Amino acid sequence: VVESWSFLDTVESNFRPLVVIELAKGTKEETIEWFTKRIVDKKANGGAQLLIKPLVTENGVENIYLVGASHLRLLLGAETVGLVKECSDNSMRTFTYSSRKTFKDFADDNHNFLTMAECQYIIKHELENLRAKNEKIIPGYPQAKLYPGKSIVRRLLTSGILVQIFPLHDREELKKLRHSWYGRVKVGYQPLDDIRCYFGETIALYFGFLEYFTFALIPMAVIGIPYYVFAWEDYDKYVMFATFNLLWSTVILEVWKRICSILTYRWGTLLMKRQFEEPRPGFHGVLGVNPVTGREEPVYSSLKRQLRIYLVSLPFVCLCLYFSLYVMMIYFDLEQWALDYHKENESNFSSLMLYVPSIIYAVVIEIMNRIYRYAAEFLTSWENHRLESSYQNHLILKVLVFNFLNCFASLFYIAFVLFDMKLLRQSLATLLITSQILNQFAESLLPYWLQKRYNRRMKKLMCSQKTDRDLSIAEQVNMEKEMGTYLGTFDDYLELFLQFGYVSLFSCVYPLAAVFAVLNNITEIYSDALKMCRVYKRPFAEPTANIGVWQLAFETMSVISVVTNCILIGMSPQVDALFPDSKMDLVLTVALVEHLLLAIKFIMAFVIPDKPRDIQMKLAKLEFESLEALKQQVRVFQMQL
Amino acid sequence: VVESWSFLDTVESNFRPLVVIELAKGTKEETIEWFTKRIVDKKANGGAQLLIKPLVTENGVENIYLVGASHLRLLLGAETVGLVKECSDNSMRTFTYSSRKTFKDFADDNHNFLTMAECQYIIKHELENLRAKNEKIIPGYPQAKLYPGKSIVRRLLTSGILVQIFPLHDREELKKLRHSWYGRVKVGYQPLDDIRCYFGETIALYFGFLEYFTFALIPMAVIGIPYYVFAWEDYDKYVMFATFNLLWSTVILEVWKRICSILTYRWGTLLMKRQFEEPRPGFHGVLGVNPVTGREEPVYSSLKRQLRIYLVSLPFVCLCLYFSLYVMMIYFDLEQWALDYHKENESNFSSLMLYVPSIIYAVVIEIMNRIYRYAAEFLTSWENHRLESSYQNHLILKVLVFNFLNCFASLFYIAFVLFDMKLLRQSLATLLITSQILNQFAESLLPYWLQKRYNRRMKKLMCSQKTDRDLSIAEQVNMEKEMGTYLGTFDDYLELFLQFGYVSLFSCVYPLAAVFAVLNNITEIYSDALKMCRVYKRPFAEPTANIGVWQLAFETMSVISVVTNCILIGMSPQVDALFPDSKMDLVLTVALVEHLLLAIKFIMAFVIPDKPRDIQMKLAKLEFESLEALKQQVRVFQMQL
Repeated sequence: VVESWSFLDTVESNFRPLVVIELAKGTKEETIEWFTKRIVDKKANGGAQLLIKPLVTENGVENIYLVGASHLRLLLGAETVGLVKECSDNSMRTFTYSSRKTFKDFADDNHNFLTMAECQYIIKHELENLRAKNEKIIPGYPQAKLYPGKSIVRRLLTSGILVQIFPLHDREELKKLRHSWYGRVKVGYQPLDDIRCYFGETIALYFGFLEYFTFALIPMAVIGIPYYVFAWEDYDKYVMFATFNLLWSTVILEVWKRICSILTYRWGTLLMKRQFEEPRPGFHGVLGVNPVTGREEPVYSSLKRQLRIYLVSLPFVCLCLYFSLYVMMIYFDLEQWALDYHKENESNFSSLMLYVPSIIYAVVIEIMNRIYRYAAEFLTSWENHRLESSYQNHLILKVLVFNFLNCFASLFYIAFVLFDMKLLRQSLATLLITSQILNQFAESLLPYWLQKRYNRRMKKLMCSQKTDRDLSIAEQVNMEKEMGTYLGTFDDYLELFLQFGYVSLFSCVYPLAAVFAVLNNITEIYSDALKMCRVYKRPFAEPTANIGVWQLAFETMSVISVVTNCILIGMSPQVDALFPDSKMDLVLTVALVEHLLLAIKFIMAFVIPDKPRDIQMKLAKLEFESLEALKQQVRVFQMQL
Repeated sequence: VVESWSFLDTVESNFRPLVVIELAKGTKEETIEWFTKRIVDKKANGGAQLLIKPLVTENGVENIYLVGASHLRLLLGAETVGLVKECSDNSMRTFTYSSRKTFKDFADDNHNFLTMAECQYIIKHELENLRAKNEKIIPGYPQAKLYPGKSIVRRLLTSGILVQIFPLHDREELKKLRHSWYGRVKVGYQPLDDIRCYFGETIALYFGFLEYFTFALIPMAVIGIPYYVFAWEDYDKYVMFATFNLLWSTVILEVWKRICSILTYRWGTLLMKRQFEEPRPGFHGVLGVNPVTGREEPVYSSLKRQLRIYLVSLPFVCLCLYFSLYVMMIYFDLEQWALDYHKENESNFSSLMLYVPSIIYAVVIEIMNRIYRYAAEFLTSWENHRLESSYQNHLILKVLVFNFLNCFASLFYIAFVLFDMKLLRQSLATLLITSQILNQFAESLLPYWLQKRYNRRMKKLMCSQKTDRDLSIAEQVNMEKEMGTYLGTFDDYLELFLQFGYVSLFSCVYPLAAVFAVLNNITEIYSDALKMCRVYKRPFAEPTANIGVWQLAFETMSVISVVTNCILIGMSPQVDALFPDSKMDLVLTVALVEHLLLAIKFIMAFVIPDKPRDIQMKLAKLEFESLEALKQQVRVFQMQL
């Protein structure tokens, strides 16, 4: 019972709104007409063949549109985006419409075969791939140029006609998810599969990593507590703890790769083919021919970009780094002043004053990180990268280098220039705890509170005392369109990365860091969950197979931490006492141990397979099948000759 | 004008012998009949559809068969093995029979479209993929079991019925190649493309690497000569040389990846899809079901293999390493004895005696390496790896570890335990030069001489004074089948690897090492070329996209050499004199410099792209096209609905 494309009509009795399109106020009629026509138009005519309905509120039409699609259209779209789903025989396969019957839970009348997040991802993909045919401009806006193949939605966005596109929340599902995620007091894992169904793979993978990382820190925390409580400072216990930490951090990063592949295999994204990357929306240039695709599109000289990177961005980053070091020196002046003050008039107040410089510095660091972040985003976007991935890599590199220096420079200075272990411990604790409190506050609680206040005001305005569930679509859209936009997992990973630095770089000086990290991460899971469910608009699902460049960043940090910990142990008085005659022997021994640890690290990373055996087998099986299918094809063709 | 498969008859007027099959003397008639029938049988009946002819010599039939194939059969085979050829528009594409007209130089009557080496590779592939249908045994040999899907040729080989399969030389082509390769005195590059056409990609890539490596060593040699001649031992010149060496070795390894991708793109192997790996011929086990393919084949418990590796192979390797260290200690006793002897009776003879222990030790090292090699091969094959690649990796690991220790342990001992730089220089020179001379002799000259003698005897036996060119096929086959078999590039790469170790590990102590390496490699190119063309049977071409595990081995060596060179510089009296007060500062400075160099190395390896920009573009273009084709397919399918 295959319906033909011509039956995929734009009017369906049970229209289910999935995605909201908000156009700017005062958008011209002809533009709206042309845009909606392109959206509903047949695929054969270059349209997206989706369903669209204007949103009618009490105030009349407000240039807000609801987009949906028929069931068949969504299934065909799933094939286009290359979705991977589970088959009846429990293997994962790329979905094709012709083989739809072989998939688990597929039935022609089962409209839940695709999750709502998948449907919204498909619609987003179709909208973004709605391309100009022979239009030279956007009707009604002569300054908004088009050329054949240009994505219409991206041009509408960059010229400000389209305000935003966002997927709608599913109030029922969200309530269920909230309940199982953080609604009840329970000990156990997060419902990762449900999170993935609702928010997509990128976000689910972040929460998976957060949870895994928290569990992985527990052994370090548990071992760290007695060191702190009983003030074990014997040489052997010390070295054992540090060695354990170093090897453990290698093991957890390697094991994460395995867990990640298990998760993404189950979710199908491990098998998903990478799509060809289109230029990012902000990319501009003169019209030329792309040498890869042969299509007309803006091109921008690679040389110009390199010049911008090396002559502007690089000096700017260096300047910022210098400024950060300058602020650090001011902090040490303050520290000295507080110490002097405490010595002069010893009192409870003055001993409290000792902590003030560190707290101020921690706050300043957070502020500088945030300001620098805006500058980095501006610069990277000015560098005009063609691909989103290249933009992201340059941004992440800039931000990581600065944040690393900003957060850890003072600690390095205290440890390896001042040689003051007491101050190091104190600074580490203050920095870690202050930044954790600030982050939790700025990231989740503050937005939550603002959102709550706004919602209350909205409800009052609507003069209704309805609960969430009774909201009409119009009310829901109006409420959600004002919510903040979740800008991706960047900040969340960055926070974890810095935390990992605090825990591992100086772990042998302050074993309690892991305890604080664990405590913070447990509340972090809840506050991040709250933020996703309550504060922000629903984000579009984004398929992903791994945590990308963050894996590399964490691994680099664990290499650096081997070096720092070895030096710290070498500097400790207990180890010093073991080599009373020759400091040379001490240094040589430390260097030898460090090289051995690094060698063991690399060998371990090499020996531990990145994917568990059964996932390897499943992948091999799929590869074998596709090779066999190809051979079969050749054979059939040869038979026909 | 497409001929049908039924026309691919086994009798063609212009039969061109490509591959020789030698069966054991006294092989039963019924076996020969069955085997040749399977080879000529139609593809539809499970045959290989090749042409086969018995070789008739003066002594009658000798169980030697010549295999060929029709032109059309070879073209279809090229599609099956996934050959990549150049198109008329200069892009590289996977060859398919249906798109044959778009390829460069293709014409239905151009029988040179596929090179002879490619034809032979196709025939080898088809023969190896000749699989048992429902035969339970090889007819005539009830002990040689078969099961559906088992490769017949592999079973025949393992049960000794099939002596060997080898491709025939093309005397004309070989003569031309010899002339352009080493026949005339010229300065310039090797004819790599011709080598690739004749011997295949693996061997051409080895010669490419050898040539590249030689050129890359020239700057080090040129800079090294004045250091030796003028005995520059100032601190700054010393450090400069070592730093240059370290960074240079990183650069050359990174640049090689780029050159390698240029070569293999041109040869088509960069784009070739990996075929599914079948079990290696020597693999045995009880009949079971392969979980990946679902086919019946021998399975062998992975646990058993692990036990063999960790309980037998690993202890054995450790024992060998211990033995090698023991031999080293004997060498030092000998060295001491020679020194004492020289002191007691000083004469020309006694000063010559000083070199004797090193020379003896170098010879012993070579002998031990060769004996160990056999043991490693035996052990690895006893470990019963399913895949050839896994077998190779385990073998290479075993051999590398032992050879590394065996060759370099004494040098490490001299440098870092005895602190005797003079002895180090002398040992290094003796080891390097002796091993080079031994290698050249054992690898090329000795076999060449043996081969020459044998050929002369053969010719005398045949009572003919013909030159090579006039030999009949029968004479050619009889001569070639007795030639040695080239066992792959393993030994050649290993030799280069050890040479790289001699040059880089202690480069700042003995700058002349690079000079000897360059001189050796220039003769090595000639003697290896001689060996390939004159001494050995023609090997089957083997497509490959890179030098595989050797890249990793060379990179590891260059990391180790950073460490050793930093220590050596730190130990030199000139640097020592710079820190008269504190040895601590010296050691800390050296450690700091070492870490900086390592960091620079890793950053350089990360920043230099592995493929040049234009190759990247070409690959992106192909990927884009295949994605587009896939989309088109989906679209066409959707239109049909």
